[in-house]
Amino acid sequence: MDYRKLTQDVKSDSFLMASLPEAVRNDALRAIADALRTSSSDIFKANEADLAAGRALPAPILGRLKFDDHKLADCISGIHDLISLEDPLFKTLLKRQLDEGLTLIKTTCPIGVIGVIFESRPDALVQISSLCIKSGNCAILKGGSEAAETNRALFDVIYDAGVKAGLPKNFMMLIEDRAGIDELLKCHESVDLIIPRGSNQFVQYIMANSKIPVMGHANGLCHIYVDKDADLEKAVPIIVDSKTQYVAACNAMETLLVHEDISADLGAMIKKASAVDIEIIPARGETDYKEYLDYKMTYKKVASADEAIAHINRYGSHHTDCILTENEKTADRFMSLVDSAGVYWNCSTRFADGFRYGFGAEVGISTGKLHARGPVGLDGLVTYKYKLYGHGQIVADYASGKSAFHFKDLK
Amino acid sequence: MDYRKLTQDVKSDSFLMASLPEAVRNDALRAIADALRTSSSDIFKANEADLAAGRALPAPILGRLKFDDHKLADCISGIHDLISLEDPLFKTLLKRQLDEGLTLIKTTCPIGVIGVIFESRPDALVQISSLCIKSGNCAILKGGSEAAETNRALFDVIYDAGVKAGLPKNFMMLIEDRAGIDELLKCHESVDLIIPRGSNQFVQYIMANSKIPVMGHANGLCHIYVDKDADLEKAVPIIVDSKTQYVAACNAMETLLVHEDISADLGAMIKKASAVDIEIIPARGETDYKEYLDYKMTYKKVASADEAIAHINRYGSHHTDCILTENEKTADRFMSLVDSAGVYWNCSTRFADGFRYGFGAEVGISTGKLHARGPVGLDGLVTYKYKLYGHGQIVADYASGKSAFHFKDLK
Repeated sequence: MDYRKLTQDVKSDSFLMASLPEAVRNDALRAIADALRTSSSDIFKANEADLAAGRALPAPILGRLKFDDHKLADCISGIHDLISLEDPLFKTLLKRQLDEGLTLIKTTCPIGVIGVIFESRPDALVQISSLCIKSGNCAILKGGSEAAETNRALFDVIYDAGVKAGLPKNFMMLIEDRAGIDELLKCHESVDLIIPRGSNQFVQYIMANSKIPVMGHANGLCHIYVDKDADLEKAVPIIVDSKTQYVAACNAMETLLVHEDISADLGAMIKKASAVDIEIIPARGETDYKEYLDYKMTYKKVASADEAIAHINRYGSHHTDCILTENEKTADRFMSLVDSAGVYWNCSTRFADGFRYGFGAEVGISTGKLHARGPVGLDGLVTYKYKLYGHGQIVADYASGKSAFHFKDLK
Repeated sequence: MDYRKLTQDVKSDSFLMASLPEAVRNDALRAIADALRTSSSDIFKANEADLAAGRALPAPILGRLKFDDHKLADCISGIHDLISLEDPLFKTLLKRQLDEGLTLIKTTCPIGVIGVIFESRPDALVQISSLCIKSGNCAILKGGSEAAETNRALFDVIYDAGVKAGLPKNFMMLIEDRAGIDELLKCHESVDLIIPRGSNQFVQYIMANSKIPVMGHANGLCHIYVDKDADLEKAVPIIVDSKTQYVAACNAMETLLVHEDISADLGAMIKKASAVDIEIIPARGETDYKEYLDYKMTYKKVASADEAIAHINRYGSHHTDCILTENEKTADRFMSLVDSAGVYWNCSTRFADGFRYGFGAEVGISTGKLHARGPVGLDGLVTYKYKLYGHGQIVADYASGKSAFHFKDLK
């Protein structure tokens, strides 16, 4: 397969995709939702083949791999939610008259071609392709090989329905071989953004091996700092929720920092309040400041809020970090100085999520600082361009003083 | 020099820098402007040493290297302009009640540590460091070696005045050896963004050799397309201005695409209208689609607006491209389908500039699509963080249905 040529074809069609009106994109999504329903038996049959081939896989992976009527219904309702969201494209961010008859408009537009690499969940394919259609982007998808049959079946349904509804021929492309990932990573001329979803190691590999900008997070090493002025009755349920509500999530707490003035046996209180057994590991050194994704946490005493802040900025992943305190001034200092996408006061780190922020859709969570930070909604899939409408104006006239800018913001 | 350690020190101070109120940053800028004035004789003496050492350099480089009373006055007035600009920090981008007593605030904050690498103009050092101070960022600077003495003198004045005015000890750092660039490019743990200013080749080298995000542009290959419905009387001055008003600029036109139905001798009309001699080079192949930065342009006939659009998307640098036409529909199509930071209708490409867009300050021009695109003002040096203010809320209660989000945007 000549990936350079294939991605160039996607790139060429991305300009058409970017110019489609909202109605065409929403109609395509509606057609796709319908097609998924009418093609469900083909999809389930493909999924049964994947499940049969993968029966030796661990149970959690098989659980993610399984694509049944329940997951299909979720996918379809997700598409309808997306249709009802406001169009992220063609929004005027700025409208400014530079001079009489010379008007600048800053308007949102798609990023272009998005490469998404995801692991075993086939529902991710539906979610990602519909997010890309809604935002006018072309998508190049690579799913986990254990879901190959299901992915192919879903792709075919979405692709056919999309093209029939008026999307350009190369609005979406599926990569089916592992070697395709490395080929994709080389296509920086045609691919504008890579969104990797998967393990820490996998995401780090992607980030290290491409010139294409990457949006996502390698790890989620979130902290809770229990200040000396914390209300422990409020604190304990927050710690338990942050650790155990969904232990495999990137926004789960991994390190608990506790002010040394707290004399109560916080560890015992946490264990008592938790429905599951949590292992509390006293910090002995740097190797304990890690992401467990398990019912384990590192516990470290600190002498001050400032020591906690310095620890988080040094060892954290800049994802989500929380202070538990009744002291507003300390909370303000923490939220101002901690350099993370989310800085929380007296609530669970598990709130770090696009749906819980009310975005209506989640593209992912970014620990990068540029473009999009934290939970990313549809806005993260758009950029902007400047349109300048003139009537023959030239810069020489402004340089000579013959004309002058007057900068009047309109509307 | 241990650059890893040095940049970590800057990183540590960047958190303090990020929390400074507007008044401290503006006071520091005022103190720096005053110090530059009172230290002018030291600065001019250093500059004379650079000019003496560099007397064999070409005249244009010597012109950029020269730092005299006129350039100092420009620098100082630039700082005062910056002081009067609105604070880019602590702006509330979103304030949303997720539930009673659970409020999300999205607020602007600095990016952190910015590495800026620039060539022979010492005034760039003043401009960049003041932009970083205004936006609460720490700066690591590397200037051209031919301006070493002037850069050191300017750095010392700015650094001393800044620290005296309350900026943290490592708010700014100067790299003085060429090898330091490669060391800096390795410091992705501490440096959040690199802004390179210089030749195409130099910027490409930076982009290819660092994991740190880069904001800028390697080349500016801007086009003008003269449509069959163009008014040639309007078109010719725009073409001449775009090519010659400042020939070394990244927003100067390099390739002229002309609809084949135009029967007039456009080349002759351009040459006649231009005060300088322009060489018009008929396109023979891909190698002619390049940035001249000289009084030369490539001239290519196209059969349609769509061929022009495809040419620009294929060979352009996504900087600024313009259509000359009286046909609004063709102009709309061009501006919608051309994938560039600036898409213009009937005006000079030379308008692509932060000051001409009314930004009050210019950080640079970006041909990347993420974070900042086109001319970048102070906004390009900030990112955002989410602050979540709770009163003990946990996610388990929302998952179980005991609590429910109500998403109410405030203010």
